Amino acid sequence: MTRPLAVGLAGLGTVGAGTLELLRKNAELIAARAGRAVTVTAVAARDRTRDRGLSIEGLRWYDDATALANDPAVDVVVEAIGGSEGTARATVEAALAAGKPVVTANKALLAVHGAALARTAEAKRVPLAFEAAVAGGIPVIKALREGLAANRFTQVTGILNGTCNYILSTMRDRGREFTEALGEAQKLGYAEADPSFDVDGIDAAHKLAILAALAFGRPVDFSAVHVEGIRNVSALDIKLAEDLGYRIKLLGMARWTEAGIETRVHPCMVPADYPLARVDGVFNAVVAEGDFVGRVVLEGRGAGAGPTASAVVADLIDIARERHTPVWGAGLADLSPVPSIPMENRAGAYYLRLMVVDRPGVIADVTAALRDAGISLESMLQRGRAPGEAVPVVLTTHDSTERNIRAAIRRIESLDTVVEAPALIRIETF
Amino acid sequence: MTRPLAVGLAGLGTVGAGTLELLRKNAELIAARAGRAVTVTAVAARDRTRDRGLSIEGLRWYDDATALANDPAVDVVVEAIGGSEGTARATVEAALAAGKPVVTANKALLAVHGAALARTAEAKRVPLAFEAAVAGGIPVIKALREGLAANRFTQVTGILNGTCNYILSTMRDRGREFTEALGEAQKLGYAEADPSFDVDGIDAAHKLAILAALAFGRPVDFSAVHVEGIRNVSALDIKLAEDLGYRIKLLGMARWTEAGIETRVHPCMVPADYPLARVDGVFNAVVAEGDFVGRVVLEGRGAGAGPTASAVVADLIDIARERHTPVWGAGLADLSPVPSIPMENRAGAYYLRLMVVDRPGVIADVTAALRDAGISLESMLQRGRAPGEAVPVVLTTHDSTERNIRAAIRRIESLDTVVEAPALIRIETF
Repeated sequence: MTRPLAVGLAGLGTVGAGTLELLRKNAELIAARAGRAVTVTAVAARDRTRDRGLSIEGLRWYDDATALANDPAVDVVVEAIGGSEGTARATVEAALAAGKPVVTANKALLAVHGAALARTAEAKRVPLAFEAAVAGGIPVIKALREGLAANRFTQVTGILNGTCNYILSTMRDRGREFTEALGEAQKLGYAEADPSFDVDGIDAAHKLAILAALAFGRPVDFSAVHVEGIRNVSALDIKLAEDLGYRIKLLGMARWTEAGIETRVHPCMVPADYPLARVDGVFNAVVAEGDFVGRVVLEGRGAGAGPTASAVVADLIDIARERHTPVWGAGLADLSPVPSIPMENRAGAYYLRLMVVDRPGVIADVTAALRDAGISLESMLQRGRAPGEAVPVVLTTHDSTERNIRAAIRRIESLDTVVEAPALIRIETF
Repeated sequence: MTRPLAVGLAGLGTVGAGTLELLRKNAELIAARAGRAVTVTAVAARDRTRDRGLSIEGLRWYDDATALANDPAVDVVVEAIGGSEGTARATVEAALAAGKPVVTANKALLAVHGAALARTAEAKRVPLAFEAAVAGGIPVIKALREGLAANRFTQVTGILNGTCNYILSTMRDRGREFTEALGEAQKLGYAEADPSFDVDGIDAAHKLAILAALAFGRPVDFSAVHVEGIRNVSALDIKLAEDLGYRIKLLGMARWTEAGIETRVHPCMVPADYPLARVDGVFNAVVAEGDFVGRVVLEGRGAGAGPTASAVVADLIDIARERHTPVWGAGLADLSPVPSIPMENRAGAYYLRLMVVDRPGVIADVTAALRDAGISLESMLQRGRAPGEAVPVVLTTHDSTERNIRAAIRRIESLDTVVEAPALIRIETF
């Protein structure tokens, strides 16, 4: 038998500790599937004395993760530190520069520096693997890069952030407002103390940028992703969406069009029978559409120690078996900088909810603003009557463009009968 | 750039022609992802003159597929002939013996001769790839063998036959009986003129045997699979299942238990909110449960030229990139012959529908038979009243064993008030 694959583990938080535990617990099974033992021999973390519920006896300890990356007895480095800069980035760069394969769960790093890292990996001919970076335990990177690689993709859409999905599910199931649902998610450990990375859509956008690069064979471009989070989604809109036959989900969408690639993350209304509509709680799911395969849906746990470790170790098994795939699915020379489409060009239907003072002429003003922007209505409903008070008015439009709807909203906002910022949610059909 | 990978294509039916079309249509994209061109250079089929809507100009033609396998200018053989014996088997054996990688969509061949073929492939150190053999375009083989390879699986369950799923969906949606729904499926090309391979569950059992071998690391054992098809499912039972909160699906299930592995294919009642309950029409889906990843669901098109070609070409791209995986996920020395559990030991709830003459004492006789077999009832419902006539009686049981329920049914069948063979459907909860 070949000698064990010696793993250097940088970071002993949730991902690092989970990986160590999995490699130990399923050691025999992993050795059989990997063709050799896969063993952590060195670790790096900030605090050696902290109790992690795991024995680190017999492992070489590094306070400095870049020193671990340069340990000649380490064959492959698992980066489980996190963040697009600082130690995580330095560790990955050091390992690649030393000609060592890297496995990482770090979506921020890949989304922001993935192009440069791929150049180093390609020059050094070593794999940079990141199954755990997107959708946790769901093998979606492998599906796009390998399992569905014969296809020209038309779109990839996903529920990519379990925190947001949990919050939206709770808001719907229990009629909670965002702030309450966030509090519950925090209590259960599904949301961080500072939740902005998740609830503002940034985490989902990192993942979407990665998926778009893989699906469309272009250099990863996080800056092209239009990002909106879920802070402005209200319980009322979730309820109204239901009445209209929709669910509100935070989706990441990458779509091919004649004019270029759309990449966007924002709350969407999706038909209740669309596969992603019924993915609830902390689950993640990705729908990929390919020209030959049609629609493929992958669903599972998108976060947590177990699923993330499952993905990290799958990458280690690939490395042990010497199954190598270029970082972005094809060699860098074969990627092409397909242009991105600005959000203003988004075309589709819209849901618009206004709070207006219930008095004659209001609806006429609103509908005139829409007409002047070239937007035609599909439905309009005033909910309840309360003369002189604020009542909700719900409108859905036929296909329009983002540019036009924004123009209409600017005018609607300026009406003195409109008493709060209009709620705008894009309706997505697939 | 490396020279093209020369593919010899044995069989020009749906799968073969689809593969040829895909390799041509997406040639540039495939070359980028494979790192070299992947080109069909030789084909074998029975009738050279048949119009397949595809040009075969410039391709070397073989009437004999084994001769194609031995063509020294062929790097890899795609077997798209089908069937567990005859030419398909001879072609695969010839290619492996000649030290050539093989890609096949042939589940029957893998399920029946997969152990012997793996020995040859391992001895010759060549890949034998078969993504297309299970669940068409869904990359489920890759998920089990690679993407989820760090996990100890507890169960793998799937809707593995699109014909049966289409028929059951049609029966439900339109209240059709089996024979009518089969006729419609045949008209639409979803069922063959002789549908027995599909509707009797054999095709699903071939696929399940493959999944079980991969998930549990044991030699493939088709003979251990308990197989029942859908011919006896009635529109009435589908309707009654709905009323009870279930859907009837033909599932393939492979489950790990302390005593051994269960592998079975039969109609099941599954809770309406289980992921597989809502997979309708010709779609396939697989649920895999692993100890670290939890539940992963993969869904997509399980048959047809496009999805199958997508899977075949994915395997070709792996071969072009030299990404090799042992046939059964681990080397043969690392597989262990985990025992199978006989169907008599199946434990779970049951649905039983009887047609009984509506007269006093009938229910007492039936319930006595169940009691004497040690079976306790969860619910019992007589539908309608028609003194002296046959009426349906529906029973659901608490957990029991197959052995006991069969004993009870033997006695119930012998009652002269029971006028047709009882309908028995196993209730599966996950």
